Amino acid sequence: MTELARYLSDCQARINQLLDQQLQSPEPRLDRLYAAMHYSVTMGGKRIRPVLAYASCQACGGEPAQADFAAAAVELIHAYSLIHDDLPAMDNDDLRRGQPTCHRAFDEATAILAGDALQALAFDWLSSQGDWQPTTRLQMTQSLARAAGPRGMAGGQAIDLASVGNQLDLASLEHMHRHKTGALIRASVQLGALASEQASTSDLAALNTYADCIGLAFQVQDDILDIESDTSVLGKQQGADMARNKPTYPALLGLDGARAKANALCDQALDSLSGFAAQADPLRQLAHYIVQRRF
Amino acid sequence: MTELARYLSDCQARINQLLDQQLQSPEPRLDRLYAAMHYSVTMGGKRIRPVLAYASCQACGGEPAQADFAAAAVELIHAYSLIHDDLPAMDNDDLRRGQPTCHRAFDEATAILAGDALQALAFDWLSSQGDWQPTTRLQMTQSLARAAGPRGMAGGQAIDLASVGNQLDLASLEHMHRHKTGALIRASVQLGALASEQASTSDLAALNTYADCIGLAFQVQDDILDIESDTSVLGKQQGADMARNKPTYPALLGLDGARAKANALCDQALDSLSGFAAQADPLRQLAHYIVQRRF
Repeated sequence: MTELARYLSDCQARINQLLDQQLQSPEPRLDRLYAAMHYSVTMGGKRIRPVLAYASCQACGGEPAQADFAAAAVELIHAYSLIHDDLPAMDNDDLRRGQPTCHRAFDEATAILAGDALQALAFDWLSSQGDWQPTTRLQMTQSLARAAGPRGMAGGQAIDLASVGNQLDLASLEHMHRHKTGALIRASVQLGALASEQASTSDLAALNTYADCIGLAFQVQDDILDIESDTSVLGKQQGADMARNKPTYPALLGLDGARAKANALCDQALDSLSGFAAQADPLRQLAHYIVQRRF
Repeated sequence: MTELARYLSDCQARINQLLDQQLQSPEPRLDRLYAAMHYSVTMGGKRIRPVLAYASCQACGGEPAQADFAAAAVELIHAYSLIHDDLPAMDNDDLRRGQPTCHRAFDEATAILAGDALQALAFDWLSSQGDWQPTTRLQMTQSLARAAGPRGMAGGQAIDLASVGNQLDLASLEHMHRHKTGALIRASVQLGALASEQASTSDLAALNTYADCIGLAFQVQDDILDIESDTSVLGKQQGADMARNKPTYPALLGLDGARAKANALCDQALDSLSGFAAQADPLRQLAHYIVQRRF
């Protein structure tokens, strides 16, 4: 097991336990809603955003326990966005990671509400869980709310939907991804750093650059994998994005061009961490992992 | 024009202007999403929740300007909940206040995203707009997040959906309404009081009782009006809730019994304000208005 594999596994175990504990229904009449929330949040996934929050907290000198509810809050936002993106009116996906999507496992109304409830819960946790200073909580809330909102993730999904079937140029594709996936990755890194209560302004700026680079690299690699992988590994249909006529990096840059871009973004991410000590090694390894992963 | 009518009109003008200003699209690619948000938030309505926030702020000695973004945040949450409740998978309503619902005026995907974006924006505003102390912002965020989340409004909507076609007893009906509509009305009153930065613990407790009473009274009156009004006044089909076999107060208590209950709740709300001076008169007049309104 590599060092990073152990780090990923530790972080995943930590966040999975927390999320499982926190998403228990408080009363029978809410069982179905909580079951849908719990199902969607614990159905697997690489927990990239929580791992980034833990690694960013560590890079700034913080302990894992300080980042717990920051990591959990960004994962709730991520989980809610997947639930809503999968809905029939959006991407209309039946499978997610090889399992029925929330609206297939439950029903559409419950899926809409589970997503809505998860979003609210993320802000509830930032304001009431953890052990942070009020000003830290506020910075986290603002960062996450902006990342999730119309100028962040929700806006990105709207731009993405509007772009299906259209020819996007590279600038427009990046603009879309910066909103749709980049904003939340940036927030994950920011919230982790803030959770340490030791991040300087220049730390936060450097980590923003890091997050922007790996966020885009992640998306480029996703597009590459969408072409290369087969359904059994990826848990969704091969070439699904291409088939839907969604714009992708390989379509615009070719496969080699897309690979070169992912690597360049990885290098840039590593450069931005030059002022950090060995505590930032998990962030460095994550940058490599994101462009080397096979699924 | 009565004193209350002038107060309502002033608050409505104030909040309408603020919401209109704040919901302008920042760039062309987000125009459609912002148009859907703006459409839904400005399509009318009595602005009961913002008015409650203003009145509660005043009752605690605050100025209207202090309550602006608290009032706006609760209205964003209310507007998002209406958009999602109207969706085909939920109540499947084509009309809201006599106008096409968001998913009819735009499309279903845009309506889902507009709702999602409005929820995030509410927390963005609480953390970054206004001129409050960090601890005040935090109390507001926590209050609103809890009211919107699975133990509040989202949970209430889930319970409501599960109860269609079922025989609910009075306790279950109240339990549902306390979540579905009561939680956000309570948050409106709390946020207004907090916005004044002068509310004592006992003020907040008294205002909670007030809010719980008028929240329930509002719902009882809604059920009464659903039977009494015709479509042209109410903007939705007469007896629509009854026709859907949704549980209502008149169905459980009879029309006279429901009226008596609304009046008793109004009296209880007024009692809870006994420690407040004349500054709380708008809250008092609102309690009367809620059970006397004809639409």
